[in-house]
Amino acid sequence: MAIIVQKYGGSSVADADKIKNVARRVAATKEQGNDVVVVVSAMGKTTDNLIALANEITDQPSDREMDVLLSTGELVSSTIMAMALREMGHPAISLSGAQAGIRTSTKYSRAQILSVDAERIEKEFTKGHIVIVAGFQGITQNMDITTLGRGGSDTTAVALAVELKAKICEIYTDVEGVYTSDPRIVPDARKLKDIGYEEMLEMASYGASVMHSRAVELGELYQMPIQVAASHNSNPGTIIHGGTPMEISNKVRGIAHDMNVAKITVVGVPDKPGVATSIFEPLTEAGISVDTIVQNSSIGRIADLTFTVNKNDIDKAMKVVEPVVKAIGAESCESDTKLGKVSVIGSGMQSAPGYASTMFKCLFEAGVNIELITTSEIRITCIIAEDKVADAVRALHKAFELETA
Amino acid sequence: MAIIVQKYGGSSVADADKIKNVARRVAATKEQGNDVVVVVSAMGKTTDNLIALANEITDQPSDREMDVLLSTGELVSSTIMAMALREMGHPAISLSGAQAGIRTSTKYSRAQILSVDAERIEKEFTKGHIVIVAGFQGITQNMDITTLGRGGSDTTAVALAVELKAKICEIYTDVEGVYTSDPRIVPDARKLKDIGYEEMLEMASYGASVMHSRAVELGELYQMPIQVAASHNSNPGTIIHGGTPMEISNKVRGIAHDMNVAKITVVGVPDKPGVATSIFEPLTEAGISVDTIVQNSSIGRIADLTFTVNKNDIDKAMKVVEPVVKAIGAESCESDTKLGKVSVIGSGMQSAPGYASTMFKCLFEAGVNIELITTSEIRITCIIAEDKVADAVRALHKAFELETA
Repeated sequence: MAIIVQKYGGSSVADADKIKNVARRVAATKEQGNDVVVVVSAMGKTTDNLIALANEITDQPSDREMDVLLSTGELVSSTIMAMALREMGHPAISLSGAQAGIRTSTKYSRAQILSVDAERIEKEFTKGHIVIVAGFQGITQNMDITTLGRGGSDTTAVALAVELKAKICEIYTDVEGVYTSDPRIVPDARKLKDIGYEEMLEMASYGASVMHSRAVELGELYQMPIQVAASHNSNPGTIIHGGTPMEISNKVRGIAHDMNVAKITVVGVPDKPGVATSIFEPLTEAGISVDTIVQNSSIGRIADLTFTVNKNDIDKAMKVVEPVVKAIGAESCESDTKLGKVSVIGSGMQSAPGYASTMFKCLFEAGVNIELITTSEIRITCIIAEDKVADAVRALHKAFELETA
Repeated sequence: MAIIVQKYGGSSVADADKIKNVARRVAATKEQGNDVVVVVSAMGKTTDNLIALANEITDQPSDREMDVLLSTGELVSSTIMAMALREMGHPAISLSGAQAGIRTSTKYSRAQILSVDAERIEKEFTKGHIVIVAGFQGITQNMDITTLGRGGSDTTAVALAVELKAKICEIYTDVEGVYTSDPRIVPDARKLKDIGYEEMLEMASYGASVMHSRAVELGELYQMPIQVAASHNSNPGTIIHGGTPMEISNKVRGIAHDMNVAKITVVGVPDKPGVATSIFEPLTEAGISVDTIVQNSSIGRIADLTFTVNKNDIDKAMKVVEPVVKAIGAESCESDTKLGKVSVIGSGMQSAPGYASTMFKCLFEAGVNIELITTSEIRITCIIAEDKVADAVRALHKAFELETA
């Protein structure tokens, strides 16, 4: 008997009708002869409402209390899902993160899973139960409730799948899978049958919001196949795995993009040790995540240092950087918030040259000016003007022939 | 340093403002140099809303799932209360029933507390924390969540007070204490400074809805003093205890009443063994609680059997009883739903005669006809016409001079 872990997000369990719909899918999986674990997120806007309630009391709620508060959202959806399955004649039981054996660090609001003790789940399997687990939550050694932060329920699902040696971890969401590019921008974007973990990580980190990187990383670490598919139809989704891709490899797999990019340039940075630290340490302390960093070659003694941040962080970042500019004796600093990012991703790229030149030529021909370039082994990213992103994505999709498998 | 346990009901924590108000009261108690445990119910209509959600899925939700679902209501209010105290600068921490060490039986929806392990609470005390405990809930040996049923949060509070050897358990509610009678009926009803456990139990069982009997019984068993007072002002409430009453003893303490009484009379019951069982066993099986039972003296072979039930149960009860009447060869059965109950309560009554005759004379003079009479050592109850109950309560309050201490 195979074990299958399924995860359903908040919009898939937003009301009673949607929960009944999901219950039918779960029941079908059970009836095919599998042991099934279902991980659920909180229903629809529940989490937002709980945060609003806390904000009526305080601007700075304690992380520990906030975690207990938010964890109730998934407890509610897990019990309602269990009730829906029982109503359909399928024995089901809900378990909290604690009961499901999700042991975490004590870092409230973004706890790490340390281990999973699947004893209780296995006991429920022997009773023929479908097990519904409240996602996004765990418990510390001290018996305190934690939440796992962004992508938490996906991470719960993959961690359980790993511990239970599941056949597959299925992530059901409101998109049908991983596409060669965003179908809202590229009408002939194609759903991928499968994709490698590393490729998926680059896609997730560079703008494709299908799944949070964290759960993909966990899947990669333990080589757990993950399927991303829609909860509202039964079309085949995309399988994320580490094996040889079923489709032709050695090829670009997708074009990711991100509109949420701002750039800061520190002009005339003196060539002294410790200058980079003076700039980036206060940014880290302010909780601002810096993405691309480029320093132009400093043959002389003066260089320009450019880096990108999330657009929402730009005002905060400038406030941090401006006094530093004076302190280190740089000339000035400038910001540009009208930027975006376009990335070409594919594990084939690491062994074959020519992808970069194809990309640059394509962008040139499409009239897109490149501001910054960064690369990894399986990705090339260009920072470009925000209003050119859609054109760039479409041009690249065509240039790399992604509309055909 | 004394330990004080305070419990606040759902209407006292119904919204953010009320929670802040309660937090100020809790903080004051802490500032007076006490270690404080606060037990909270779910906010306002939360429990009703959760039940409605479950009913969208099924008419018969599993008790186990329902208990997890409902337990989230108290988790939410406990975290919000902890946040409110922290916002006021008072270190506070919320604990679930499980974390607070409330171990229960496995009887979902009406679990019994088996033991309390106060280790975690005591640890929080050493850190100077005010401890907020989610009421109404506990955990089984198997780590399953249970709820305690009616009066659950009061019971949580008293059980914690007992285990912690608290100085007192304070129950804050929307009434100011225990009155000699219902102030809505008797304008000069007087708030009692104190009352004995047994007297309070009779008051609670016979219509005074201040506190559930169950928590009072637990208080009596361990001689834990309980104060009932208002959460919206700081007037002194009523102390329920087992010591010598501060006020004059040997006296009627209060008049309780209940409008919710219906009577069934089985006419012409043959004098055969097992007849009573034939009638009451099916009622018990149908979940109908029978209160007073009276059989008139059967010198001949035929008797009338009369008993009372909750008015809401009368149709169901008649459906159960009618076939039994035929089966046992009784003549007929009749019901009367226009009844009420008035009770005179006081521990002084057990050693002094004359209370009964004073009561009957008073009712006679007030033109109230008595249908049935039952007594305990410290209570005399008369079943009377519903529309005479208010008059009867006022007349008895005056006859026993309850307006003066």
